[in-house]
Amino acid sequence: MELSARNQLKGKVANVDLGAVMANIKIEVTEPGVITAVITKESAERLGLAEGDDVVALIKSTEVIIGK
Amino acid sequence: MELSARNQLKGKVANVDLGAVMANIKIEVTEPGVITAVITKESAERLGLAEGDDVVALIKSTEVIIGK
Amino acid sequence: MELSARNQLKGKVANVDLGAVMANIKIEVTEPGVITAVITKESAERLGLAEGDDVVALIKSTEVIIGK
Amino acid sequence: MELSARNQLKGKVANVDLGAVMANIKIEVTEPGVITAVITKESAERLGLAEGDDVVALIKSTEVIIGK
Amino acid sequence: MELSARNQLKGKVANVDLGAVMANIKIEVTEPGVITAVITKESAERLGLAEGDDVVALIKSTEVIIGK
Amino acid sequence: MELSARNQLKGKVANVDLGAVMANIKIEVTEPGVITAVITKESAERLGLAEGDDVVALIKSTEVIIGK
Repeated sequence: MELSARNQLKGKVANVDLGAVMANIKIEVTEPGVITAVITKESAERLGLAEGDDVVALIKSTEVIIGK
Repeated sequence: MELSARNQLKGKVANVDLGAVMANIKIEVTEPGVITAVITKESAERLGLAEGDDVVALIKSTEVIIGK
Repeated sequence: MELSARNQLKGKVANVDLGAVMANIKIEVTEPGVITAVITKESAERLGLAEGDDVVALIKSTEVIIGK
Repeated sequence: MELSARNQLKGKVANVDLGAVMANIKIEVTEPGVITAVITKESAERLGLAEGDDVVALIKSTEVIIGK
Repeated sequence: MELSARNQLKGKVANVDLGAVMANIKIEVTEPGVITAVITKESAERLGLAEGDDVVALIKSTEVIIGK
Repeated sequence: MELSARNQLKGKVANVDLGAVMANIKIEVTEPGVITAVITKESAERLGLAEGDDVVALIKSTEVIIGK
């Protein structure tokens, strides 16, 4: 099965912390590649995003799905 | 300002594609580091996640915030 | 109150599992209907999505809101 | 690859609408099954969720990933 | 119908910008109230969050659902 | 660092509730301002959204990031 989600970062599980309902998993990324971000056009213009800019891709941990 | 979101991947903007309302931004990650994923305990157990497992961190592009 | 979120699947609660902060709720869907997915145009084209294709709609459990 | 995301609804693509950056895809679900929702314990208690309750699972269309 | 999502900010539509697939809606909040945020325990501890702290609640625009 | 996420509501921490893996944080918003919501064009048209409409911005607590 191929997925629409483009961001697929390969890595190794570094830690597993189980709670009652949720689990916190640390993944050491070994092959990063390219991240696709979809933001509003107005935010892209406000930040003046252009090729070559140094940026940070921010992702909340609850948004990450794990494939194994 | 420090953020609660742990996943902060440094990179360079590789492409900017502006639509009417949204924009698609490609970021070439230069320093990957560690990804934190919060999933349900039952999914962690179903996948049998353990230290050293090879996994993929999947992130939908609409979930990525850009900092510059 | 009418909501912008189109995906509203009717069902019955099948299980409630309470943790310290979070709760895991199982809902047996009784009337599925149509799911709307918004993805990037490039992913739609990469997957070659067309009417009649067999697909899977994937949704992380933290993204589901419950109405009662 | 097995995924941590539990909610995997099988269906058929009913419509594809391409914009400049995003695409709106309609999926007619053919086998619904069970939806897992993770909400706060306080919301579960406030709604008084219990087995057998009639509920609605609400999902914003930007949160749906498509697998094919 | 009562919803599990606690954050319900009342306001007035200030602007509507329609694209091909998506729409950008500005809402002027008239009654803010309290925002509930669920983050990892480790982020709460790393930020040293305590009653009375001045903070900012950050929300990506794709995560907002509108009720009318 | 400037962020693409437009919705940045200033407030004060009113309560911190730590679980095993997750934490529930209450923030009393002191300066609301304007909320940007990105929804599908079809939902904007179905709700007939227009300037001056009374609406509610709904946000699931797992979608909120905290900055301090």
